[in-house]
Amino acid sequence: MALPRLALVPGEPAGVGPELCVRLAQRPRDYRLTAFADARSLREAAARLELPLTLTAPGEGPATPGELAIVEVPNAVPATPGAPDARNAAAVIGALERAAASCLAGDHDGLVTGPVHKAVINEGGIAYTGTTELLAAQAGCEVVMMLANDIVRVALATTHLPLREVPDAITAAALERSLRIVHRALHDDFGLADPVVAVLGLNPHAGESGHLGAEEIEVIEPLLAALREEGMRLIGPLPADTAFLPGKLRGYDAVLAMYHDQGLPVLKYSGFEQAVNITLGLPYPRVAVDHGTALDLAGSGRADPSSLFAAADACARIARRRTMPRTPLSRVPNR
Amino acid sequence: MALPRLALVPGEPAGVGPELCVRLAQRPRDYRLTAFADARSLREAAARLELPLTLTAPGEGPATPGELAIVEVPNAVPATPGAPDARNAAAVIGALERAAASCLAGDHDGLVTGPVHKAVINEGGIAYTGTTELLAAQAGCEVVMMLANDIVRVALATTHLPLREVPDAITAAALERSLRIVHRALHDDFGLADPVVAVLGLNPHAGESGHLGAEEIEVIEPLLAALREEGMRLIGPLPADTAFLPGKLRGYDAVLAMYHDQGLPVLKYSGFEQAVNITLGLPYPRVAVDHGTALDLAGSGRADPSSLFAAADACARIARRRTMPRTPLSRVPNR
Repeated sequence: MALPRLALVPGEPAGVGPELCVRLAQRPRDYRLTAFADARSLREAAARLELPLTLTAPGEGPATPGELAIVEVPNAVPATPGAPDARNAAAVIGALERAAASCLAGDHDGLVTGPVHKAVINEGGIAYTGTTELLAAQAGCEVVMMLANDIVRVALATTHLPLREVPDAITAAALERSLRIVHRALHDDFGLADPVVAVLGLNPHAGESGHLGAEEIEVIEPLLAALREEGMRLIGPLPADTAFLPGKLRGYDAVLAMYHDQGLPVLKYSGFEQAVNITLGLPYPRVAVDHGTALDLAGSGRADPSSLFAAADACARIARRRTMPRTPLSRVPNR
Repeated sequence: MALPRLALVPGEPAGVGPELCVRLAQRPRDYRLTAFADARSLREAAARLELPLTLTAPGEGPATPGELAIVEVPNAVPATPGAPDARNAAAVIGALERAAASCLAGDHDGLVTGPVHKAVINEGGIAYTGTTELLAAQAGCEVVMMLANDIVRVALATTHLPLREVPDAITAAALERSLRIVHRALHDDFGLADPVVAVLGLNPHAGESGHLGAEEIEVIEPLLAALREEGMRLIGPLPADTAFLPGKLRGYDAVLAMYHDQGLPVLKYSGFEQAVNITLGLPYPRVAVDHGTALDLAGSGRADPSSLFAAADACARIARRRTMPRTPLSRVPNR
């Protein structure tokens, strides 16, 4: 069976992305890896880390640790660790777009991305709200952001919205889209034959029978009832404060949170280093690190590569499932 | 030194409250304990648990395990475990009010409360939104709800509000009141000489410099700056998703969350059984269990008393600090 072919994008060249990619290249791997990146920035990171790095043309040969295939996307100016330069914004976004286009064209089977610096990209004259949004627009599809570690998978019904705008964004149509994407991904990408999704309420205590808000009764409950009719296994709407109790988490395969700060604190508390950010709904699997550019650590060699390692592993696992005959398992507790 | 005198209220008589109180009465204790309760309901719980229970008049003599002083507040009808009766609503609320009045009068030094069933109280014709709110109104003061376990203390700037109403409730005046109450309680009640409070943002990523909401810039940051001028040690506004990372929690004594579902998931995930609910700002310490009436467990004897035990211990500890000469310690990691 052919190895999955993953495209790798380091993200902000002045952040920890390049050095994390060099560390990833040192690992034995059961997938092929092609960086869409500036060669010099990777070579400089390797030199700082005193690690071997041989950049090769993308190909089919086996990669030994220390080797990395590269499609060069050159930076405009050399990157200085810790000091992002807005002149490199086009290269950062260009690398993402080219790597994603390669996945859409079927030349790669999945996309692994490092951290991008949002403000610097915008400063560089590119309107950018997030990589997830960029990839969704490029592919022309609806997506859902899921954060996952070994403890819990959390999908978000809304992501980077001011809290004030969240309640109106929780519509039946939007929730239905999200739930269908999450459900299909748990089945197809995570190999769960009959996945169970816990859906949180919007309000404290999931609205407490209408005493603390009406959205559960008016929007969420009718939708869940309709989807259960189709056979989806959905629990909720659940109060967010107790839905993450360890004993309860064992009863479902993923949690759909209504908004960012409702779903992510437990995910990050329970295992930040191994957490990854998975974009569900794209034609290809995309997995990102769950941390930022860490400018204060860039160049020091002290950045923890666990999240990028976990991202590559998760992406390869999903890519392999998508290219293999379907054999979904029941309640497999992997990412 | 006189032992602290704690008033104990079981809460809903058809819930697990009475049996948890009977279990508490079995423990050796370094405080005096007076139940404001229906004697029959406690005796029946003891009989079901096959535990000794001798109810005595409130007094100054030492209590041996199995003894409990009682101020009788009779139920209207006998309680059936698992089946709350709205006719007992007045007794439930009456016990709370009498116990609290006894604290306000200086006859007791702290109040420990079991779980109340909100819907049944309202069904009984008593407008009730929560015990915290009832006690604040009775004492005529502003309060803050804090949930605490051995990992983290979380105070809430807003509590039981529909999510839609949260942003407008985060005013500088309300936040200032909350922060002053939290700061004073950490110093006086928790014995911290120079407490550090982490304040969360309202919006995801704490507003990300205004890109995801303006409340941090317009409301929270100016207030924190003003209070820092007075010498308060305040961190933030912090993004809620990473503020609870274990390594970060060690840097502060409490977290002020802007709303319920932002602050409580990690608290409950990290140690639900030992969590307690502390009302800050009252003239007396009040500590409640952090769980509900558990009607499904009532009468089974299987309810975990850890939270009530922790509540009594925390209440006694605070009562003792309030009656002792002040000796605040620096960064003591107890509740």
